Amino acid sequence: MSSLRVFVDFATPPDVLTLLREGTAGHELVFPKKPVTSVLAKAEPDPQFGSVDVAFGQPDLQSIQEAQRLRWIHVSSSGITRYDTPEFRAQMESRGILVTNSATVYQEACAEHALSFMVAQSRNLGLALRTRTANGTDTWHALRASCVPLRGQTVLILGYGAIASRLTELLRPFEVKILAFRRHPRGDEGVPVIDASQLNTALASSDHIVNILPDSPQTRRFFDTDRFAAAKKGAIFYNIGRGVTVDQDALVGALRSGRLGAAWLDVTEPEPLPDNHPLWAESRCYITPHTAGGHANETITLVRHFLDNFKRYVDGKPLRDRVM
Amino acid sequence: MSSLRVFVDFATPPDVLTLLREGTAGHELVFPKKPVTSVLAKAEPDPQFGSVDVAFGQPDLQSIQEAQRLRWIHVSSSGITRYDTPEFRAQMESRGILVTNSATVYQEACAEHALSFMVAQSRNLGLALRTRTANGTDTWHALRASCVPLRGQTVLILGYGAIASRLTELLRPFEVKILAFRRHPRGDEGVPVIDASQLNTALASSDHIVNILPDSPQTRRFFDTDRFAAAKKGAIFYNIGRGVTVDQDALVGALRSGRLGAAWLDVTEPEPLPDNHPLWAESRCYITPHTAGGHANETITLVRHFLDNFKRYVDGKPLRDRVM
Repeated sequence: MSSLRVFVDFATPPDVLTLLREGTAGHELVFPKKPVTSVLAKAEPDPQFGSVDVAFGQPDLQSIQEAQRLRWIHVSSSGITRYDTPEFRAQMESRGILVTNSATVYQEACAEHALSFMVAQSRNLGLALRTRTANGTDTWHALRASCVPLRGQTVLILGYGAIASRLTELLRPFEVKILAFRRHPRGDEGVPVIDASQLNTALASSDHIVNILPDSPQTRRFFDTDRFAAAKKGAIFYNIGRGVTVDQDALVGALRSGRLGAAWLDVTEPEPLPDNHPLWAESRCYITPHTAGGHANETITLVRHFLDNFKRYVDGKPLRDRVM
Repeated sequence: MSSLRVFVDFATPPDVLTLLREGTAGHELVFPKKPVTSVLAKAEPDPQFGSVDVAFGQPDLQSIQEAQRLRWIHVSSSGITRYDTPEFRAQMESRGILVTNSATVYQEACAEHALSFMVAQSRNLGLALRTRTANGTDTWHALRASCVPLRGQTVLILGYGAIASRLTELLRPFEVKILAFRRHPRGDEGVPVIDASQLNTALASSDHIVNILPDSPQTRRFFDTDRFAAAKKGAIFYNIGRGVTVDQDALVGALRSGRLGAAWLDVTEPEPLPDNHPLWAESRCYITPHTAGGHANETITLVRHFLDNFKRYVDGKPLRDRVM
């Protein structure tokens, strides 16, 4: 294969740059004038993009449309919202452009994050870590009694992809009952998959509702007043997908009414929520600032994953984490 | 078997009392004038104790010595510190008194508590839950980078009993390397068991040090300056056993020097620590108020476990959780 021009749109510290250069030796790396600082950020259009073969990052739609040599886009995140439309999919197919994402890179950390929320909830860590009380007091008894072991409970996971699959593995020793809801069941989920007609019944019987839905026109405000009203009283709601899939006013209402026992959110809309947002004031609403996928040496893991795919691309082998 | 007199030393709400009466029908329940309010508390001597056959709770040593009819003590906690001496063991053996504890009752909740500490650490929830920052900021990048997945790390568990065994099950999907340190290895641990001569080497290679040691003359201040100095730099220390097994001044020192990356404590000495104790001021020291074994309907679980053993006792079958 002749030398490829590979566009990388994010900032690369020296060790990452060395790794990238080694893994693409014989090919040409192209960097924008203004690299983005977050793999979730949308890159600005760059004039060099028109002449590249491969794009690694978050290229903008207009640039992709104009890039006549482009053959492969490797998205530097797990979510592919800005590309996930029928029009874009059709365009990629007709132009023969492959699209892969970085799902595997964030799978482990995201699944651990979801599990950390679930066991922190079951042990009521949010309250326990700020309570100084003596053994035997009413406060102490109430705190202990507020801990509901995960074992034997029912967990509904919405958006059953790579993260959910790993979360299911992590939950196995807890002997929970897991139900999955996903757009396109594949039959390899290993847990019962429900469809839209069964969703309200599943919500009514689930102690834990884990929302990992991606952002799409079908999932916007998927969790609205009606959906929360269908939940089991006292159910715990988790969101490690995208903030826009939740009607946050409805979420506030569900917490205030006691319909939900607690909410653990890694994503909100917007991020961060403004300081006067009512969710901050809900004592049973726990929010982390979209850190679920993050982990030590993240950029290294991200680049290694890309380079593994780059070698496959050069060798003409099937790519991993292909989404289009 | 003739009717037994069963002493129960803790406060019993109506539902618990009903359960107890049903499970001991045909026998006599005896309650003290002043029931204790915590299953961890030591009961006051009670004159009725001299004529009971079975004691369920935390009877004091003097009362046990004077109770001539006593044949079985079921301790209402997992720890049996006040009974765990060679003299007491010898006395029980010579008098033919059986001693059981409630280890199984607290096993699940304690193991979940330990795991909640470990995944909360790996996801840095302590910091993430109080950080409001936008995607792409330095704070955000640092927070994400501070998350070290458990997968593949080394975990040393000291005090390898029922809780540790369950924790090992919960940790299995994380594919961690587990090392166990226990006083009397039984050969059924399922993980490598090290002895005292190997301890410093194990400490030096462990990312997580989980202390579940019971309180005994051999374990007092087991974790002292030398022991912490042997730990791998940045190791995470957990204590869900007993506070007295740790030299807390040495712990403060190990946190301040960076020898330990963080400490998660469910137990301290005393409980709670006084408000001016330096551990409260350590930002990487997380403390819950001895809630590890607690769970919803705890007294019901405790009583059910006792009643299961009571039926075994009446039927002449081997008791569960026998410790002497």
